[in-house]
Amino acid sequence: MCRWLAYSGTPVLLDTILYKPAHSLIDQSLHSRLGVETTNGDGFGVGWYAPHIDTPAIFRDTGPAWSNRNLREIADHIHSPLFFAHIRASTGTAVQQTNSHPFRHGRWMWMHNGAITDFHLIRRDLTLAVDPTLFAGIEGSTDSELMFFLALTLGLEEDPPGAVARMAGLVERTGREHGVDFPLQMTIAVTNGQGLWAFRYSSQKTSRSLYYSTRVQTLRALHPDMAFLREVSDETRLIVSEPLGDLPGAWNEVPESSYGIVQPGADQLLPFTPQPV
Amino acid sequence: MCRWLAYSGTPVLLDTILYKPAHSLIDQSLHSRLGVETTNGDGFGVGWYAPHIDTPAIFRDTGPAWSNRNLREIADHIHSPLFFAHIRASTGTAVQQTNSHPFRHGRWMWMHNGAITDFHLIRRDLTLAVDPTLFAGIEGSTDSELMFFLALTLGLEEDPPGAVARMAGLVERTGREHGVDFPLQMTIAVTNGQGLWAFRYSSQKTSRSLYYSTRVQTLRALHPDMAFLREVSDETRLIVSEPLGDLPGAWNEVPESSYGIVQPGADQLLPFTPQPV
Amino acid sequence: MCRWLAYSGTPVLLDTILYKPAHSLIDQSLHSRLGVETTNGDGFGVGWYAPHIDTPAIFRDTGPAWSNRNLREIADHIHSPLFFAHIRASTGTAVQQTNSHPFRHGRWMWMHNGAITDFHLIRRDLTLAVDPTLFAGIEGSTDSELMFFLALTLGLEEDPPGAVARMAGLVERTGREHGVDFPLQMTIAVTNGQGLWAFRYSSQKTSRSLYYSTRVQTLRALHPDMAFLREVSDETRLIVSEPLGDLPGAWNEVPESSYGIVQPGADQLLPFTPQPV
Amino acid sequence: MCRWLAYSGTPVLLDTILYKPAHSLIDQSLHSRLGVETTNGDGFGVGWYAPHIDTPAIFRDTGPAWSNRNLREIADHIHSPLFFAHIRASTGTAVQQTNSHPFRHGRWMWMHNGAITDFHLIRRDLTLAVDPTLFAGIEGSTDSELMFFLALTLGLEEDPPGAVARMAGLVERTGREHGVDFPLQMTIAVTNGQGLWAFRYSSQKTSRSLYYSTRVQTLRALHPDMAFLREVSDETRLIVSEPLGDLPGAWNEVPESSYGIVQPGADQLLPFTPQPV
Repeated sequence: MCRWLAYSGTPVLLDTILYKPAHSLIDQSLHSRLGVETTNGDGFGVGWYAPHIDTPAIFRDTGPAWSNRNLREIADHIHSPLFFAHIRASTGTAVQQTNSHPFRHGRWMWMHNGAITDFHLIRRDLTLAVDPTLFAGIEGSTDSELMFFLALTLGLEEDPPGAVARMAGLVERTGREHGVDFPLQMTIAVTNGQGLWAFRYSSQKTSRSLYYSTRVQTLRALHPDMAFLREVSDETRLIVSEPLGDLPGAWNEVPESSYGIVQPGADQLLPFTPQPV
Repeated sequence: MCRWLAYSGTPVLLDTILYKPAHSLIDQSLHSRLGVETTNGDGFGVGWYAPHIDTPAIFRDTGPAWSNRNLREIADHIHSPLFFAHIRASTGTAVQQTNSHPFRHGRWMWMHNGAITDFHLIRRDLTLAVDPTLFAGIEGSTDSELMFFLALTLGLEEDPPGAVARMAGLVERTGREHGVDFPLQMTIAVTNGQGLWAFRYSSQKTSRSLYYSTRVQTLRALHPDMAFLREVSDETRLIVSEPLGDLPGAWNEVPESSYGIVQPGADQLLPFTPQPV
Repeated sequence: MCRWLAYSGTPVLLDTILYKPAHSLIDQSLHSRLGVETTNGDGFGVGWYAPHIDTPAIFRDTGPAWSNRNLREIADHIHSPLFFAHIRASTGTAVQQTNSHPFRHGRWMWMHNGAITDFHLIRRDLTLAVDPTLFAGIEGSTDSELMFFLALTLGLEEDPPGAVARMAGLVERTGREHGVDFPLQMTIAVTNGQGLWAFRYSSQKTSRSLYYSTRVQTLRALHPDMAFLREVSDETRLIVSEPLGDLPGAWNEVPESSYGIVQPGADQLLPFTPQPV
Repeated sequence: MCRWLAYSGTPVLLDTILYKPAHSLIDQSLHSRLGVETTNGDGFGVGWYAPHIDTPAIFRDTGPAWSNRNLREIADHIHSPLFFAHIRASTGTAVQQTNSHPFRHGRWMWMHNGAITDFHLIRRDLTLAVDPTLFAGIEGSTDSELMFFLALTLGLEEDPPGAVARMAGLVERTGREHGVDFPLQMTIAVTNGQGLWAFRYSSQKTSRSLYYSTRVQTLRALHPDMAFLREVSDETRLIVSEPLGDLPGAWNEVPESSYGIVQPGADQLLPFTPQPV
């Protein structure tokens, strides 16, 4: 399993979110509190949008995040209004750059925590379901990347929530055809550089942890002394596998079987149900 | 493209073959003479059989062989009667451990130099042709590994030359269905720890270089002063992408469209023709 | 800080000691019980003696041991009568191959758990104390490697316990000259391929954990059913940072300020006191 | 030996300089024309200044530049008005991140091509000459990093040309004390984020190649059709180990024993002579 965070809002130095918080993602790489494993040291990645460039930059490596000097350099020197970061705990597939998240397709980024149960049993069938024109883009061997390619096949670029629901439906149907009772466990973040969608779902309704940050206006009223809150816009939002600290009122659990949309204007929190394909 | 060597015979320190020769494989990693590229620095691997263990050891890494200290240590301390070594020049797929040769399945090892032309066009169809029970073992993204899994699907463990001929036939037919005139370019070595088979073939009949060493008895007569030749058995044989030095009479080109068998007793050199599947 | 083990005795497959035990060193890389950190994922190394070769082989890498496939391959294929293994938790110096243990000089190997307090303050003075003819051999930036070079300077190859005592005395004197109250914290293993010496000491007398295995004859009487104990000689001994499992009677703490000698004939346990230089 | 480039001028995407030119630095990593080796695959680095941050970002890694995906990502997404890039061919010291250039100290960056002759003989004496307060900052084992620390010791931050001259004088004196006839071979670039100094010198007066780009105004007149020249300011300047292409009139050799200053206003080219220390 893994841990991740997604940031959208006022451009900040990546360091502000990745390293500075008391229980930052880097701290979680050694001492996760809510993850299946306390250590997430099997590769990591960060993806960010730079001004005037549609395609996000993806920096991924294979060792632990906590000791990676290049990640530290990037965090200390790059500002971005929208970025993903992910730390990996492999469930068996190889530790290699192409298995580190986030994954990219054109202007889209995707990251995942969870697993397809008995993936080895259904990997072939799911692979065959990928659009032949997309097939050559698969580079790694994870369930996570394959879920991305299935979502792309099923319309991610036109209808993200619908495509993720169809992907989940396909995984569940295929798994059950192979005798797997609870085929899917997932929290997912996906973005095109403008909207950001985050999903929490599992076949058994025991999904991995996922939290979103409270509206900035509300937080400012609660914590008038916090400088950071005065520097970021009302539109700023974080989605995280686990809270980055213990600030009272700051973090809210995403309910089971739901998804959130972070977008210009009011954000939304909606129920999520896999769709038959 | 790549360079490789296969050794079978009297157990020797790997260093004797990998580093010591004037134009050793390590030298070829920087200064290949007959390869498509002079530099082969995109990963490497060595696989060897140890006494009383059926499954070969596979040591693979992602950087260049020439600067790898662990390879140097292994070569300085391990003896083996049968080993493969490979240096990679990527034709585009990721530089990662799971894309380095040799590949292994049970007691079998496989390595390849060459390419499937327009692999991105036919990768999906070839992937679907892999036996579903083998499918989950595919870890990397190279044409070379996929060729291994196709050969396994088509009977490699029972009939190596036949299975490789059927694999080549399948690749050629699939390529031509996608409008590729000359789909295949390959030199391949494969072993089960006892026999060793080496193939040279390309659809266009312009195959990558491949050589085999002269019979040790003959070489001893030619070079009575060479201590190394007195220390190895008559059964000792090397197959190499390019000669390891300039010893007169030592190296013989494997003819176009042929394959060799290194085995207890007389070795063989036979014609190779892809077979329809 | 770090964790390590040293094995001396009947030649065994490295896997038997590195991976098989319930609380193996590989398990300790993720879940150390007695270490300063639970995670030891900042590089690792294994050094072993091969038949008829004086100089040990050293395989070291930079990522975590738990996910390293090459370590798994080596452990599955190499037998040795004397080997060291080490997993590192960096206290700040770079994660790089030359900072991974064990370190080697000719036929000697050295590994360390602990730290020189305020190393940055006294690194220069200690560096100057290294024999000029040895100086060029320093490749990394750790206190551990420097301690090895100081011990070599102070006679390690002639008198291991004396040289380590003088090294400890030099570190303590130099530290105190710079105002450091408790300059040294160490458990050390050193071998020349025949004898094996293991030290436990700290200036504050709160040394890191260190254990030695009970005599094989005694263990066989306690556990007559354990096949492993019947396969190894009476001379077989393990020294470990923490016990590899919960076998009753198997593990004994090395007392504070002492060192052990594993050698042909009776092993010894003796008091250790730093010596003035 | 190595190859490097330094860019100062209108902020550009790093890709424009690192990958786009016909004989780019990335091309030189495989096919250097003027270097001692054609292959420079033993690590690489890029250092750049970001807006409003004094300290440059340093991204360094250990494999070849030509296959590094993270370098490609950085080059595609980061603009900078002042950056260094370096590709390494090791002359024997370890291939590790801390041996890759550029090196950094506060706001200063340094990179080097060349070598100190018989470095192992004089490394200790030169190490002792480093200011004790700087000593703990040495992380790697190269002559290049040590030359940087000596220059810092000898006043780099106040007087770059003087400090480099004193460093060169110290290296030459120390080398000759150890019987080395021609101790120094160097091209060096150093910057504080505002000025940029580039040196070409060797004891034997056979220095490695170094070139500077022609003034932009002149180039525009020669090549009125080149869009790139219309997009960059008159102040834009490149210093390179070898020309990035064959554009007539674009490249000028830095004379033996000289150095250049790239700065606001007119740049300068001056003679360089080592100074006694």
